[in-house]
Amino acid sequence: MTDPAHAPRPARGRPRKEGAEQRILEAALEEYAERGWSGFTMDAVARRAGVGKSTVYLRWSDKDSLLTDAVTTRSQDIEQVDTGSLRGDLERLAANLFRYLLDPAGWATLRMAMEAAIAPTPLGSFTEVVSGQHLGAASEIVQSHLEAGTLPTDAPVRTLVECLYGAVIVQTLSLAGDDRKLTDEDIEERVRPIVDLVLAPLAG
Amino acid sequence: MTDPAHAPRPARGRPRKEGAEQRILEAALEEYAERGWSGFTMDAVARRAGVGKSTVYLRWSDKDSLLTDAVTTRSQDIEQVDTGSLRGDLERLAANLFRYLLDPAGWATLRMAMEAAIAPTPLGSFTEVVSGQHLGAASEIVQSHLEAGTLPTDAPVRTLVECLYGAVIVQTLSLAGDDRKLTDEDIEERVRPIVDLVLAPLAG
Repeated sequence: MTDPAHAPRPARGRPRKEGAEQRILEAALEEYAERGWSGFTMDAVARRAGVGKSTVYLRWSDKDSLLTDAVTTRSQDIEQVDTGSLRGDLERLAANLFRYLLDPAGWATLRMAMEAAIAPTPLGSFTEVVSGQHLGAASEIVQSHLEAGTLPTDAPVRTLVECLYGAVIVQTLSLAGDDRKLTDEDIEERVRPIVDLVLAPLAG
Repeated sequence: MTDPAHAPRPARGRPRKEGAEQRILEAALEEYAERGWSGFTMDAVARRAGVGKSTVYLRWSDKDSLLTDAVTTRSQDIEQVDTGSLRGDLERLAANLFRYLLDPAGWATLRMAMEAAIAPTPLGSFTEVVSGQHLGAASEIVQSHLEAGTLPTDAPVRTLVECLYGAVIVQTLSLAGDDRKLTDEDIEERVRPIVDLVLAPLAG
């Protein structure tokens, strides 16, 4: 079955390793989603990803660094928002967060932030990464609109972002099981009234 | 040491039993806050409450019924809101939710709702009790203001409640450790801009 003539080992090694890395990061989020921080172990992640324990430890020394990478990789898409209008940007941002929270792995990151808030000892740097990445995306958008003059300087920016993100969190909280399978159109329809409301103070 | 003349057994039995019940309910929320649903056991609750396992099972047959009672008892205060004005009621409601979520045991109930949303199998009726009680309080207030005419019938009521609750959740998410020790004045100050924003659509 193994035929060195077909593809030399060095060339095949890289993709396989990257595949394993991707599987480990996915497995870490799934494990976290099921077990939380206290029940999370590197062993279980290795088993779930179908790799040896040493493969996990080769790249990550502890669960904090592993979860930080897993969350960072998964959150990257949320930041790419530039539609040209304030309303468009906010709708896109809220829709991105919606999709993210309907994804079990994305949902796990919200649980991380919740666990961190009442942990008797700090859980690790991964929790700062989670909130930093989300709030960073919103701040960048808001900042660019303040500079462009499309957002007045006295706008209640912080409250606006809190209400926008919060309403999406509350909506995803009330969706369980099959109700969490929403189409992009469903999400846009749910997001629009939220953006209407948070932009209302700027209309007057 | 035991002197039946001082106080007859039946008279002393009742308060001691109620004390145990209260300790068990508190212990259940604390255990849940630390371990989540998957790590929650009746044994650990009994140990934490300092009672025998049989004392717990005498009153509750499983962890679902125990957690339902624990959550219901803790959530009761949130519903008592009647200040006479729409703004006052919303501020009081948001402040109640704030205090509730800053309390480790109250915080546990939010985690329950989050766990329920992605649980592979339904976690139990306690999750419905959690969201039902909170949304019920908001609906009652909104309904009474719709009837009184202090809230226009075309107001985006659902979105308003989602933004109000959501913003409080986002704020409490970003508070960890000692930052969670807020005074009533701190809370009122944080709640006011949120209510300003959600009432803005009604001002125009």
